[in-house]
Amino acid sequence: MTRPLISLAALLALAAPAIAQEETPPPAPSPGEIVAQAPAEEWVAIAPEDLLVMTLAPAEDGSERKVVIQLMPAPFSQSWVQNIRTFARSGWFDDITVNRVQDNYVVQWGDPNYDNPESSGEQKALPPALVETDERDYTVNGDAISLSTLLADSERDLALEAESLVSGNKTAAVIIANGLVDSYAQLSLFHEGWPLASNVGSDDEGEPASVWPIHCYGMVGVGRNMSPDAGTGAELYTVIGHAPRHLDRNIALAGRIVEGMEHLSSLPRGSGALGFYTEEEADKRTPILSVRVASDLPDGERPRFEYLSTDGASFARYADARANRRDPFFIVPAGGADICNIPVPVRRVAD
Amino acid sequence: MTRPLISLAALLALAAPAIAQEETPPPAPSPGEIVAQAPAEEWVAIAPEDLLVMTLAPAEDGSERKVVIQLMPAPFSQSWVQNIRTFARSGWFDDITVNRVQDNYVVQWGDPNYDNPESSGEQKALPPALVETDERDYTVNGDAISLSTLLADSERDLALEAESLVSGNKTAAVIIANGLVDSYAQLSLFHEGWPLASNVGSDDEGEPASVWPIHCYGMVGVGRNMSPDAGTGAELYTVIGHAPRHLDRNIALAGRIVEGMEHLSSLPRGSGALGFYTEEEADKRTPILSVRVASDLPDGERPRFEYLSTDGASFARYADARANRRDPFFIVPAGGADICNIPVPVRRVAD
Repeated sequence: MTRPLISLAALLALAAPAIAQEETPPPAPSPGEIVAQAPAEEWVAIAPEDLLVMTLAPAEDGSERKVVIQLMPAPFSQSWVQNIRTFARSGWFDDITVNRVQDNYVVQWGDPNYDNPESSGEQKALPPALVETDERDYTVNGDAISLSTLLADSERDLALEAESLVSGNKTAAVIIANGLVDSYAQLSLFHEGWPLASNVGSDDEGEPASVWPIHCYGMVGVGRNMSPDAGTGAELYTVIGHAPRHLDRNIALAGRIVEGMEHLSSLPRGSGALGFYTEEEADKRTPILSVRVASDLPDGERPRFEYLSTDGASFARYADARANRRDPFFIVPAGGADICNIPVPVRRVAD
Repeated sequence: MTRPLISLAALLALAAPAIAQEETPPPAPSPGEIVAQAPAEEWVAIAPEDLLVMTLAPAEDGSERKVVIQLMPAPFSQSWVQNIRTFARSGWFDDITVNRVQDNYVVQWGDPNYDNPESSGEQKALPPALVETDERDYTVNGDAISLSTLLADSERDLALEAESLVSGNKTAAVIIANGLVDSYAQLSLFHEGWPLASNVGSDDEGEPASVWPIHCYGMVGVGRNMSPDAGTGAELYTVIGHAPRHLDRNIALAGRIVEGMEHLSSLPRGSGALGFYTEEEADKRTPILSVRVASDLPDGERPRFEYLSTDGASFARYADARANRRDPFFIVPAGGADICNIPVPVRRVAD
């Protein structure tokens, strides 16, 4: 059994012009069609200060390889985000390399001599003016995003949907509440365009509710050494496989790839420990020519991106369609989805 | 709060020699260490009849690229599996190509002219002796794997763990029952080395309980056209991103990649519709030189593989460790995992 996120009648009303209601309803829209139909006012501009343009050495065929990263907004991971801007603006990121490509896990770039079991060279000196980072900042207090308020309106819906929660239909049940039951936390939810998880709901040890960003495909995290080291932001990685959610709350997430992911995910895998390139295959380390904060670029070169508001009607329909595919190819709607299988739509704004 | 799958005392007893019990316990083993320590009798040989060796054209540096596929055992997808052996033995797979590489989704290989929006050529004639396939076989009746028996022993454990089920600690709760609560079904579980999902548990419409294989990273599925077409097995794909579980029960799964996945996951993404290579980039279509059933190969060339029994003590410890990482790098154990983040260990047997 699947339960639509909003009633099927309402869905068809949204999907088809009113004039067509008497006729055979058109095929249900795909998630992509729902996103394409979203009104302009449901798209939210991303601040240029929150975008990094990372230019890799050209591909073997000479084609350009640019990767655009969106940095995590407050209140999450801001010490690492501040440092990442410092690394970019000081030029420290220029001429680093991609050093690790581990299949179904991560691509990592930075100083080839940092914490690299396959390299023994000198580490590159860090720039001044870095701020301290602290592993306690892997999570934030739920109050920082008004989590209780965010979820209050949903309590009735959650109660109504409680039965479906235990019948496996979790997404349809709690996306209504802008949240999903999750295998790694008591709740996962979307907030201002980002996938988050939270322990809200069983605070039986009197701990404050906490919220944290999660490791979905394309998220960008901060390499670190053993705790209490929390990483400076010099070493970054992105997820290129199934969501390694066990890293949540164990390492800082500082952003996500919003364009050019394929330039990283298709790199040759490293044969060394943890997927690092060995010294013998050092020529596979892709050079990173430059990393720039978009707001520092001249107008003509400054990319503009926007994300689909995760509070809007279109996102609700999109998330429901991801959890219950009704477009013509599909036979059986899943009746649910995990949060990393509902990627938040982000698109480049044409100049 | 995290709950170990088995008691921590039992875990340490297993992890450390008895003589060491009085001393400081050693660091908890990583999932990989638990697998490495598994006794030989917990490893199960894979029949050579169930292994395919797919040889791609050499890489640009001249290195060999072989991919080994394990076919799905009975009772799952056997009509497609039988056809895939027929395609391999008739030589039909020789000189096909990889035609589609869609980032965070699938790599697909077969006849470049089959159902390809980027190609308009003639389709290759199919070999004789193919069997009919039917979309009703995307799932099987739970009785076919004695599902009720499989789960009966677990009911007490499940009851004891019920509270943790609703506190987000799903994996630890129900891996004890050899099953996981799942976002896409009422239950997911491991059976004879494969990840499965099932609707067992709320059979309120009087339908028989059904069980089906699921789309985790590296699983191999059968391309098809619109329903009721269920695909012959000529067109195969593998998952190269986050588990696209919405495809479960909508398309046949016929196996999984057990070696050489990186040769497919690192291929350049296609720029055409659905990640197909366009005619302009047809030179990116990787040739597949041959596909052979391992049992047809001479002894010296026949690879041997085995998987870690999903019913054994080592797998239970491994799954628990995946859900609650305690090895030194980790600070906060997740307290749960989704089934596709607990890949079943498969290894090559040395000659």
